[in-house]
Amino acid sequence: MTSPEERLAELGLAVPEVAKPVAAYVPAVVSGDLVFTSGQLPMRSGELMVTGKVGGEVSAEEATLCAQQCALNAIAAVKSVIGDLGRVAQVVKVVAFIASTPDFTGQPQIANGASELLGTVFGNAGVHARSAVGVPVLPLDAPVEVEIVVRVAQ
Amino acid sequence: MTSPEERLAELGLAVPEVAKPVAAYVPAVVSGDLVFTSGQLPMRSGELMVTGKVGGEVSAEEATLCAQQCALNAIAAVKSVIGDLGRVAQVVKVVAFIASTPDFTGQPQIANGASELLGTVFGNAGVHARSAVGVPVLPLDAPVEVEIVVRVAQ
Amino acid sequence: MTSPEERLAELGLAVPEVAKPVAAYVPAVVSGDLVFTSGQLPMRSGELMVTGKVGGEVSAEEATLCAQQCALNAIAAVKSVIGDLGRVAQVVKVVAFIASTPDFTGQPQIANGASELLGTVFGNAGVHARSAVGVPVLPLDAPVEVEIVVRVAQ
Repeated sequence: MTSPEERLAELGLAVPEVAKPVAAYVPAVVSGDLVFTSGQLPMRSGELMVTGKVGGEVSAEEATLCAQQCALNAIAAVKSVIGDLGRVAQVVKVVAFIASTPDFTGQPQIANGASELLGTVFGNAGVHARSAVGVPVLPLDAPVEVEIVVRVAQ
Repeated sequence: MTSPEERLAELGLAVPEVAKPVAAYVPAVVSGDLVFTSGQLPMRSGELMVTGKVGGEVSAEEATLCAQQCALNAIAAVKSVIGDLGRVAQVVKVVAFIASTPDFTGQPQIANGASELLGTVFGNAGVHARSAVGVPVLPLDAPVEVEIVVRVAQ
Repeated sequence: MTSPEERLAELGLAVPEVAKPVAAYVPAVVSGDLVFTSGQLPMRSGELMVTGKVGGEVSAEEATLCAQQCALNAIAAVKSVIGDLGRVAQVVKVVAFIASTPDFTGQPQIANGASELLGTVFGNAGVHARSAVGVPVLPLDAPVEVEIVVRVAQ
């Protein structure tokens, strides 16, 4: 049995530091056995990986990597409130907002960057319901924003 | 007492087949007494009913029928994980994303296509909280995407 | 110990009347110990405070006040189903949809109008997870729509 962190390490990834809470909201909140994360941007080492819209200045490949990074940051947000990622019993829901030009309709492929990471890291517990939608613009001109809901073993 | 399926039949509708799970996500996930569905597109017999933006090439009437179909697909997703739709105790939340031209502000009327179907099918248990928002584009250029959260009797 | 209503009064605010339920959906639904609200528009005394897009005809300052009003209306929606706002144990999640021109990337600042009101009114119980996203257009051409999920003490 490998742990979620070990599976991340096999991908060459690690749980990043959680961005400092900003004002009146926090990266994640526990409610009963559910954890709700804030919308995560593709921040890596404190900076956005890329800015702009998919279908415009951001390629589908770049955006898919951004979605993976958003999921990684969401994992970090969950870990910050539950401590041990081995307690994740189920990733319940993923919503991926993709900053898109009006003619870009490949949001599911972009969101797969998040979904596949969650599947790799959590196995069967990582299989989730998902919505992927286009938006015109995201905070800081990020191309992707991902929020997740996770159920934790009590 | 008529069943949800009987009420659908009175509308000339039936619970459709659930689209096959795509890669790392599934049509619906059960978490405690809640069921979260994936965002549902207006697929009918494996094809989108119509593509494009409301306020542009898609009329409000077409989009309202799309929202109804999205809700029907969401009902199918719920049924796929709980078996008996008679176990639905409450439709808790509906989010309707409407691919809109910037000057189209009638998202609530479009979303009513989903809300009214849920009310007809589930009666008092179908009365829900709802958000309806415009988006610039949706997967496969669908005009509407609907996700729901349902509470199930234990 | 001051009550949530007293903290609102200190801001010169009061819990507004809840907009009448429209057709097949309602302002808020209780599910177990969670309350899910409908998306709230910046209605004040039955009218939108302002219409249009942030980055266009609506200033960031106006939009931030709109987000505050949306949060106030969400508080009213919660109160309409639980009676006593002192029962709010935690604001779990806030989603803020900001009608934005494609070059406006300050959604977090706008959403702070909602987050900060919730923090002031509910104290530690008001600290939440949050997503803020841009959208092209909202119902009735509102510049902001906010939905919240709240946990209630049993």
